[in-house]
Amino acid sequence: MTKTAITPILVLLVCQGCVSTGAAPNAAAPKVVLIIGDGMDDQQITIARHYLVGEAGALVLDGMPQRSAVRMQTVDEANPSLPDYVPDSANTATSMATGIVTSAGRIGTTAGTDRDAVTIMELAAAAGYGTGIVTTASVTDATPASFVAHVNWRLCEGPRSMVPRNQSGGLFAGNCSADLKANGGKGSISEQVAASRMDVVLGGGRQHFDQPAEGEATKTVADVAIENGFAIVRTADELGALPPDGGRVLGLFSPSTMPVRWRGAGDAKAERVQRVDGRPALPDAFPCEPNPDFASMPTLPTMARTALELLDGGPFMLMIESASIDKQSHLRRPCGQIGELGQLDDTLKLVLDYARAHPETLVLVTADHSQAAQLIPETSVLAALNAASPGAFARVRTPEGALMGVNYATNDSNVQEDHTGADVPLFASGPGVDVIPSSLRQPEIFGLLLRHLGLTAPR
Amino acid sequence: MTKTAITPILVLLVCQGCVSTGAAPNAAAPKVVLIIGDGMDDQQITIARHYLVGEAGALVLDGMPQRSAVRMQTVDEANPSLPDYVPDSANTATSMATGIVTSAGRIGTTAGTDRDAVTIMELAAAAGYGTGIVTTASVTDATPASFVAHVNWRLCEGPRSMVPRNQSGGLFAGNCSADLKANGGKGSISEQVAASRMDVVLGGGRQHFDQPAEGEATKTVADVAIENGFAIVRTADELGALPPDGGRVLGLFSPSTMPVRWRGAGDAKAERVQRVDGRPALPDAFPCEPNPDFASMPTLPTMARTALELLDGGPFMLMIESASIDKQSHLRRPCGQIGELGQLDDTLKLVLDYARAHPETLVLVTADHSQAAQLIPETSVLAALNAASPGAFARVRTPEGALMGVNYATNDSNVQEDHTGADVPLFASGPGVDVIPSSLRQPEIFGLLLRHLGLTAPR
Repeated sequence: MTKTAITPILVLLVCQGCVSTGAAPNAAAPKVVLIIGDGMDDQQITIARHYLVGEAGALVLDGMPQRSAVRMQTVDEANPSLPDYVPDSANTATSMATGIVTSAGRIGTTAGTDRDAVTIMELAAAAGYGTGIVTTASVTDATPASFVAHVNWRLCEGPRSMVPRNQSGGLFAGNCSADLKANGGKGSISEQVAASRMDVVLGGGRQHFDQPAEGEATKTVADVAIENGFAIVRTADELGALPPDGGRVLGLFSPSTMPVRWRGAGDAKAERVQRVDGRPALPDAFPCEPNPDFASMPTLPTMARTALELLDGGPFMLMIESASIDKQSHLRRPCGQIGELGQLDDTLKLVLDYARAHPETLVLVTADHSQAAQLIPETSVLAALNAASPGAFARVRTPEGALMGVNYATNDSNVQEDHTGADVPLFASGPGVDVIPSSLRQPEIFGLLLRHLGLTAPR
Repeated sequence: MTKTAITPILVLLVCQGCVSTGAAPNAAAPKVVLIIGDGMDDQQITIARHYLVGEAGALVLDGMPQRSAVRMQTVDEANPSLPDYVPDSANTATSMATGIVTSAGRIGTTAGTDRDAVTIMELAAAAGYGTGIVTTASVTDATPASFVAHVNWRLCEGPRSMVPRNQSGGLFAGNCSADLKANGGKGSISEQVAASRMDVVLGGGRQHFDQPAEGEATKTVADVAIENGFAIVRTADELGALPPDGGRVLGLFSPSTMPVRWRGAGDAKAERVQRVDGRPALPDAFPCEPNPDFASMPTLPTMARTALELLDGGPFMLMIESASIDKQSHLRRPCGQIGELGQLDDTLKLVLDYARAHPETLVLVTADHSQAAQLIPETSVLAALNAASPGAFARVRTPEGALMGVNYATNDSNVQEDHTGADVPLFASGPGVDVIPSSLRQPEIFGLLLRHLGLTAPR
């Protein structure tokens, strides 16, 4: 319902002519690089900046010429006329990829009615453009999935997940069996990736491809992808050995989420503050250190560079996700989120270099939603009253020699934090970015992509 | 130390010519309205938007043509070469008012060395411009004080506070006696306001003026202000009865902070989540209602309109503070902060109307620092695991019929929350705002004021 209200307005507002003609607004083949920092709100950016470049320093992000605020929109699955003020990565990525407003947990489908919404990747592929997805998560995870697949629940990641309704926590719990091909659906997310017309898909999530496809005894989803024309690479070396004209590529570098670049020294993370005789015993401060598990992985900049090389030459739509800003914040790991945001910033530098050589490139950087982590005093202003965080708390020792308090207190579980609902930033560089309003609704990002690519929104 | 490093760079970067000539960059007398939403980060803005205009709605703020991020800078008082990652309203307002970087708690003075830094109000007054301060806090509170006074500690608000070193909590605790006139200082903040060349000062804080001035047996600070040419008004009626050409005005409408517009129904606020048999008993949801104590107060828009009327006709520098976004968030009162942000948005509408009729007006809206409140799910995604907020938590029933979870969990005291350290927004409208970078350091705001007013920074 919200879709029809939003998309046409959007196209009229930001496109002004390019829709009716179908012509790209640029001289050369239009290119879009959309970088999504999952959970990358201003708390995350500030925490990472202090560690990476110091309080007086500036990230590559900070130098982007245009910055706006994005107002997320989510609706309740049972009653889509009611807002839901805290979204997840599925419904927010779906808004960016399709222009609709939907409910938490949904991938490219409408709230309540479960209709498929056409994605920007599908529109770009249909127009003969190159298409790419790069992520540090599983390529079947909510954010990348929303650009390429249509299921009623984000956890329908592979054939083995396609079981009847599965209740998991409080998040909208879908019914994967409804999306079985046998039931008229398009199958699991990995099967939809394997059957897609994408040119480049790089990330983790191998486990969802190394299992039999629906209705097959032994043929795996990976086998189906190969039949569909994908070359599959599974290591950084294999990725590096790809020929520049190597055709369509599916990279699966880890079973699930890819290991992150950094961790707390000795694997330290935020902990509950203990009390001794009523006084808080603040946790020991720690710096960040390289995560040994990361060494064998291709970095996000490396994956992004490969995608750009493979897509170069024609118009394209490339989405790059830095996924573990969110995932490490869920797990109360400040160094994990800082290192991941560092990967995003390094990737942005590389993408901006590409865009300088290809000025027909629109570069957008945004977050899908905000997260739990807060930058708070390393000792409370009320320490004299024995005040301390009621949540999980870390004191990170920064390279400039100061202590940074990072707080995680959205819930008291031992499992993970909740998201938060605040507006997120949108950074933009490239042709026409000066007309992007200073505040926009998240589904309007779809309109920015359409406009730059000269594509027409479906009715 | 940071001052000399920052201010000249700033002026060179953003002024480009106007400084050397002293000429205003505008045809008519330049005007600046700087609106500070104390603690108004993106969590606050989003929470208020949902309540005031609904999830799909837009605030007046959202329509501002330009938006940037502001990177705060604070240093340690004992070792000013070390950053302090979570500021307070004193050092941040000092950065905006003077261009320096200083330590938490300081008002218009340098960290460690306690030297006075010249404020934009002092420069504007010296140039013959009109000057105004409007606030919903005490006019002696940290934010307004930093534009007009110089003391080593924010709590040196009136003569009775000018006692030897006073330790209060963990915030840098100064020594008010060092600022006594008898000791070569400029006296308390209220005395510096009374002795100032300001044209309009409106807000709360009467208690700091209704006490004997330093060295006087009976003459109050208010008496000194009258001798200095201020007309004093103490009620909304007296404010409304001021003649348009009424000369210099000091408005003191409450003993301390002015009462806020809204409160939770039945005075509800966020509470600790209780547990029954291990299960969280979430607090009852509540809507907002008018605060009865607010009825007799002049509203922030009314005070702002009066200030604009009094300053109209010539060039001026006006600072308007919506103070209780911060103060109500400290006290875990979501409706208080929402109503206060509503007052800011109403005031912005009025100011933009003024600016349309006076296009030589630069309108800036920003926050000084970020705050504790977070928009979280009204029931945790992990509710099935009995997860709930470890902090103080409220469920606010919005006019669009949904529940909004607001969390306060920076510390576990029963007193108040801590600030947070994330970047804050800067909204801008008026001549030249398209050259404001998308990200700037907070002291650079001083440069924006100087540039628009055509004033020269002191060496």
